[in-house]
Amino acid sequence: MVKLDPTSFVPLYQQLKDIILEGIDKSVWNPGDKVYSEQQLSEQFKVSRNTAKKAIEDLVQDGILYRIQGKGTFLSYPKIEQSLSAFYSFSQVLKDKGLKPKDIILQIKVEKSTHKIAKALQIKKGEEVIMLQRLRCVNGEPIILESSYFPEHIIEDIDKLSSVGDIPLYDILRSEFGIIVNSAKESFEPILISEEAEYLEVKLGSPALLLERVAYDPSKKPVEFCKSVVRGDRCKFYTELI
Amino acid sequence: MVKLDPTSFVPLYQQLKDIILEGIDKSVWNPGDKVYSEQQLSEQFKVSRNTAKKAIEDLVQDGILYRIQGKGTFLSYPKIEQSLSAFYSFSQVLKDKGLKPKDIILQIKVEKSTHKIAKALQIKKGEEVIMLQRLRCVNGEPIILESSYFPEHIIEDIDKLSSVGDIPLYDILRSEFGIIVNSAKESFEPILISEEAEYLEVKLGSPALLLERVAYDPSKKPVEFCKSVVRGDRCKFYTELI
Repeated sequence: MVKLDPTSFVPLYQQLKDIILEGIDKSVWNPGDKVYSEQQLSEQFKVSRNTAKKAIEDLVQDGILYRIQGKGTFLSYPKIEQSLSAFYSFSQVLKDKGLKPKDIILQIKVEKSTHKIAKALQIKKGEEVIMLQRLRCVNGEPIILESSYFPEHIIEDIDKLSSVGDIPLYDILRSEFGIIVNSAKESFEPILISEEAEYLEVKLGSPALLLERVAYDPSKKPVEFCKSVVRGDRCKFYTELI
Repeated sequence: MVKLDPTSFVPLYQQLKDIILEGIDKSVWNPGDKVYSEQQLSEQFKVSRNTAKKAIEDLVQDGILYRIQGKGTFLSYPKIEQSLSAFYSFSQVLKDKGLKPKDIILQIKVEKSTHKIAKALQIKKGEEVIMLQRLRCVNGEPIILESSYFPEHIIEDIDKLSSVGDIPLYDILRSEFGIIVNSAKESFEPILISEEAEYLEVKLGSPALLLERVAYDPSKKPVEFCKSVVRGDRCKFYTELI
């Protein structure tokens, strides 16, 4: 059996964390399985209740474990990893991983552009834009709240956007409106979730990533401004630098 | 003078926000300048105090304005934009923008690797690593808390790392230790600031980006695992997708 080393410079709670992390790597538990309680940890490894608590709290903070009040501590599902290196279809990435993506269309409507949207789309503030808002779910869980804005004149028939639940957005833009998206500038910054909390089914103030994208056609005209709020507890992004 | 349009579908607070944002774009204020108070806004544009409050609160939430208790609301310095598309020297990027970067070395020491660090560096847990921790400041303000870990055997003389305040890290690795870094995998996820709050001089629970990088030499051996906690109120990242 694995034992802690009280003479080590590595603090006991860190040793405990490492034992749990190694167990996870060795698939001792599956995602959703109940793992040690504070009491079990402290009894099995002969550490104080505080040390056990600190180990579990750290892992909860890292998103590796999650708690259900009165039920215990469980192994999280691994965060969904998305590459930022190239264009991708979110749905395709998920299907390739064996996950079940589903988009719920919340709104498709015409609205007046705000300063920010107008600037991104290089139109005048107040000019009309088409707004498409989707809740992107994975295995039934809401993950991303995504709002796309298009200059009004490029979307001739907004009803045609409604097939976006089944067909990737950029495929619809191409086939229905002849719009080709071939480059984009994307910015991302960490935020605290505010009014999106309800849709994303997380607490107010949870960590999230705000992703803003301007997508361009081959003539470098902006065709979409997209604002996504991504749940930080369920997603991480990566990029390869060469 | 700009007036609000009470008949518009655009809510009044949004119209107010847009007026402030346009003023910022037109350089009506410089970063650090005091902008409208709630009272001024509500008097000048003839809106309720609540509407003025909502406009200011939203802009504070977005990091565009900031408040000093008892003093008023001020224009934030623009977020530092960093590209993720390629390797970059953080200091060089900042110097190019006319900012004054400064690194404060907090720790250089030998320690035993945790499970996570060992996995990233492809060594055994508990094997020794060199840890270099830096607080990266811009114009005197702490922005990033960065901890780099190297396999112990590749750093022959840890004192040589101490010139990292003046010379970029990867230049030191190359010139002092013959280590060439030519690729990396970087992941990032939004977190809430916990024990880093004190160094970064922000409140507990502020939004931050956790950036983890494994850097490789030309033979694809990992030579560095780096964990950075980046202040979300001061930085945003961007990438161009083609």
